Amino acid sequence: MSNKRKPWKNWVLFLASLTIVFLLGMLVSTITTRKMEAKFAYTPKTKINPLEPRNEIWGKNFPREFQSYYKTADSSFVSKYNGNAMIDMLAIDPRLVVLWAGYGFSKDYNQGRGHVYAIDDIHNTLRTGAPTGENDGPMPSTCWTCKSPDVPRVMNEQGVSEFYKGKWSRLGKEVINPIGCADCHDSETMNLKITRPALIEAFDRQGKNIQDASHNEMRSLVCAQCHVEYYFDKNLPNKKGTPYLVFPWDKGQTVEDMEKYYDSIGHVDWVHKLSKAPMLKAQHPGYEVYKMGIHGQRGVSCADCHMPYKTEGGQKFTDHHIQSPLNNVANSCQVCHREEKDELIKNVFDNQDRIIENRDQLEVLLVKAHVEAKKCWDLGATEEQMKDILHGIRLGQWRWDYAAASHGGSFHAPVELGRVVAKGIDITQETRIQLARLLHELGFKEEVPYPSIETKEAAQKFIGLPIDKLKQEKEAFKNEVLPKWKEAAKKRESTY
Amino acid sequence: MSNKRKPWKNWVLFLASLTIVFLLGMLVSTITTRKMEAKFAYTPKTKINPLEPRNEIWGKNFPREFQSYYKTADSSFVSKYNGNAMIDMLAIDPRLVVLWAGYGFSKDYNQGRGHVYAIDDIHNTLRTGAPTGENDGPMPSTCWTCKSPDVPRVMNEQGVSEFYKGKWSRLGKEVINPIGCADCHDSETMNLKITRPALIEAFDRQGKNIQDASHNEMRSLVCAQCHVEYYFDKNLPNKKGTPYLVFPWDKGQTVEDMEKYYDSIGHVDWVHKLSKAPMLKAQHPGYEVYKMGIHGQRGVSCADCHMPYKTEGGQKFTDHHIQSPLNNVANSCQVCHREEKDELIKNVFDNQDRIIENRDQLEVLLVKAHVEAKKCWDLGATEEQMKDILHGIRLGQWRWDYAAASHGGSFHAPVELGRVVAKGIDITQETRIQLARLLHELGFKEEVPYPSIETKEAAQKFIGLPIDKLKQEKEAFKNEVLPKWKEAAKKRESTY
Repeated sequence: MSNKRKPWKNWVLFLASLTIVFLLGMLVSTITTRKMEAKFAYTPKTKINPLEPRNEIWGKNFPREFQSYYKTADSSFVSKYNGNAMIDMLAIDPRLVVLWAGYGFSKDYNQGRGHVYAIDDIHNTLRTGAPTGENDGPMPSTCWTCKSPDVPRVMNEQGVSEFYKGKWSRLGKEVINPIGCADCHDSETMNLKITRPALIEAFDRQGKNIQDASHNEMRSLVCAQCHVEYYFDKNLPNKKGTPYLVFPWDKGQTVEDMEKYYDSIGHVDWVHKLSKAPMLKAQHPGYEVYKMGIHGQRGVSCADCHMPYKTEGGQKFTDHHIQSPLNNVANSCQVCHREEKDELIKNVFDNQDRIIENRDQLEVLLVKAHVEAKKCWDLGATEEQMKDILHGIRLGQWRWDYAAASHGGSFHAPVELGRVVAKGIDITQETRIQLARLLHELGFKEEVPYPSIETKEAAQKFIGLPIDKLKQEKEAFKNEVLPKWKEAAKKRESTY
Repeated sequence: MSNKRKPWKNWVLFLASLTIVFLLGMLVSTITTRKMEAKFAYTPKTKINPLEPRNEIWGKNFPREFQSYYKTADSSFVSKYNGNAMIDMLAIDPRLVVLWAGYGFSKDYNQGRGHVYAIDDIHNTLRTGAPTGENDGPMPSTCWTCKSPDVPRVMNEQGVSEFYKGKWSRLGKEVINPIGCADCHDSETMNLKITRPALIEAFDRQGKNIQDASHNEMRSLVCAQCHVEYYFDKNLPNKKGTPYLVFPWDKGQTVEDMEKYYDSIGHVDWVHKLSKAPMLKAQHPGYEVYKMGIHGQRGVSCADCHMPYKTEGGQKFTDHHIQSPLNNVANSCQVCHREEKDELIKNVFDNQDRIIENRDQLEVLLVKAHVEAKKCWDLGATEEQMKDILHGIRLGQWRWDYAAASHGGSFHAPVELGRVVAKGIDITQETRIQLARLLHELGFKEEVPYPSIETKEAAQKFIGLPIDKLKQEKEAFKNEVLPKWKEAAKKRESTY
């Protein structure tokens, strides 16, 4: 029959079909891969200016990082462990008002919120006051340094020393974008980058080049641009009068090392309003304390726990929703520790509770020391009689503040913080022994009564803070000055 | 040809050969296994009396365990971290003499040596004095409880309450074998076994049955028979006058829990010779503190690190050379922690240094408190004026001692010990504030001078200890009484 083909012809047809199907498969695969790449890969679509301060512009190229970063803003995402609700620490712990009497923190101190709130929060805090003009207000322009990717831009335009000059209000129109991409990244390579001079200079003074840091070290060092102990030095050679931002690391990073540094240059952050003690305000020696703990010692970086890797659609990326690892135990702790989430969180809290118990007690002792010293002054004590006492108060409170301000320190290095707090208690109590003797000598034989500071308001009244006036002035600033800053900034950015 | 077999015959021959070879293999294997078992397995050769106190007898059946146990005796094995050299702690730290003034520990206190020295060391220490007869000497027979596998034997013969009755010298001829096999093992099954009533009774009072403990828990609980806080209670119902051994765990095991327990029963270990404070002597709350640390929390047992598994000739067994894990990092730490030995040891020492710094300072403060209190008495202070002060000294030193006596505690639970030491400093200094006020009131306005206690001898002289007399008496005891104890024991054992 003519319908019957020869067998070899069937074979040829069969092999040809296979080949065609195989080639079709390859074609589909290639197209799909390309499409996937186009969809997921971080190939820059837009060229970004290295000093571009606007996070949204970077976000066009890096949607996952940008979107996860913006989760630090989402107040519906308020979590158990640290969220974005405004927590008034002075209301929670009114002793702080007394410890900081005469210093800005006694006016207003809220728990730090997500990076995205950096600018809003510095606008709103009573600490920055209510400047009416460019040369007005309590704070120097140095205060902006950690708040915004506008900072490297303005430093580039004005120079570093010039940036630190003048009042905070001078740069109100310039610094407007919250902490973000350009603070830590190179816009060309997306590599991590140190943009703040203070860290580079601190390394320099120790004979180290920060360019030699490994990628793993950089995953902590970008954080160490801000989450460190610092002070404003107005006495640097050739920079007299400029409150230049300096990290006090030249003698080391322990509480004693930095104290030795501060004592050697006679640095005083403020004179306490009640005791007249020459105080040190610890800022936030988070990086220094973390380095002393076991995670730091083992080379676990800040980002490993606070920005752990995440996967979306098969694409691995660094979660830029910077937050407490306790909100994200699966991707942080549990990468190494094979324990149940609840157990791991309990371990952290158990250690924190052990530190906080004595840290709270140290606060009580410091309140007593301040009011007892005030009593001595009131009874006519001399400078000579008070000298050692005031130095003791300085050293005791410095230890308390180092422990309290090193946010997360009770987790990062609990044994070291326990040591610091215990030493703080010892020094403060030894000072109170001297106070007891001096009070007796001045004719006062009872205990000086503990002040009525059950609420923030009571404590602020006790230290004589005109809080209503400060609030009124702040409102005026927010209504009259702030909108102008924002408008000017908007106009400026529209020309980019 | 007749040589040619049929093919099926070849097959049959082949299969038959295979079967024979297989069976031969089985036979050889069985014989070898049996021989191996006979060589290595712990099949008792000798039946052991459950109360057999002599470790050598058990050692016949369990040579590896026995030989490794006896390494605790080898003075050539003195190691870096804890060895068998006699370390005089009072010479290293003469402050201890003052802290324990009026108590046996001020006479003599050496660092604990290996278990094998338990009997020698209790014979030789000045604390047990120099009894001349059965009803003589400073210590009760209860002191033997932790020293020997003769204890369960004698308890079985005399009864528990009877065992605790009378003087230490009463049982000098009975208790002769150092801590060993029968203290922790069942002679039939070799299972772990609790032989001391105090632990069983402590569990009972908390409504727990120690029989329910898992094997893993038992690997710590056998140690907890002795390495715990304890006291001698002379006021137990139906046991009035007998210094009955009790673990003060009824309210919990933290320093506060046990203090609450002691305060609730008005327990006083001794009245301090200088300050007259009603003191507590912490014994060695090692188990309690270990349980609060991360290793305890994770279920790592005492034996896991202090007696880790070892292999000899392919045989795995528990190393009975009980010692610091730092002498044996490979088999202890490194089983879980993938870090270099030196790094692991450094981590331990870093934490210990952090605790010891403040613990040492607390010692200094306590010395001051004792001499200041003595000064108050000397100046005519009243009981009423001293009451709170003496209670403060009691609580401060209890915290110091809990931290110091929980051997290894700075490793086992450093954060908890840091908390305890800090609280001890706070209480002691608060007490010294009261002392400063009282001294002023009594007309003494200077600082009370710190005593000259640079050496053990100076410190013992300072507290008025007739040390030469104590030493002479001890020599007489060792020359005259002790040989008789040993001879009588030898004679008794020869009848077993």
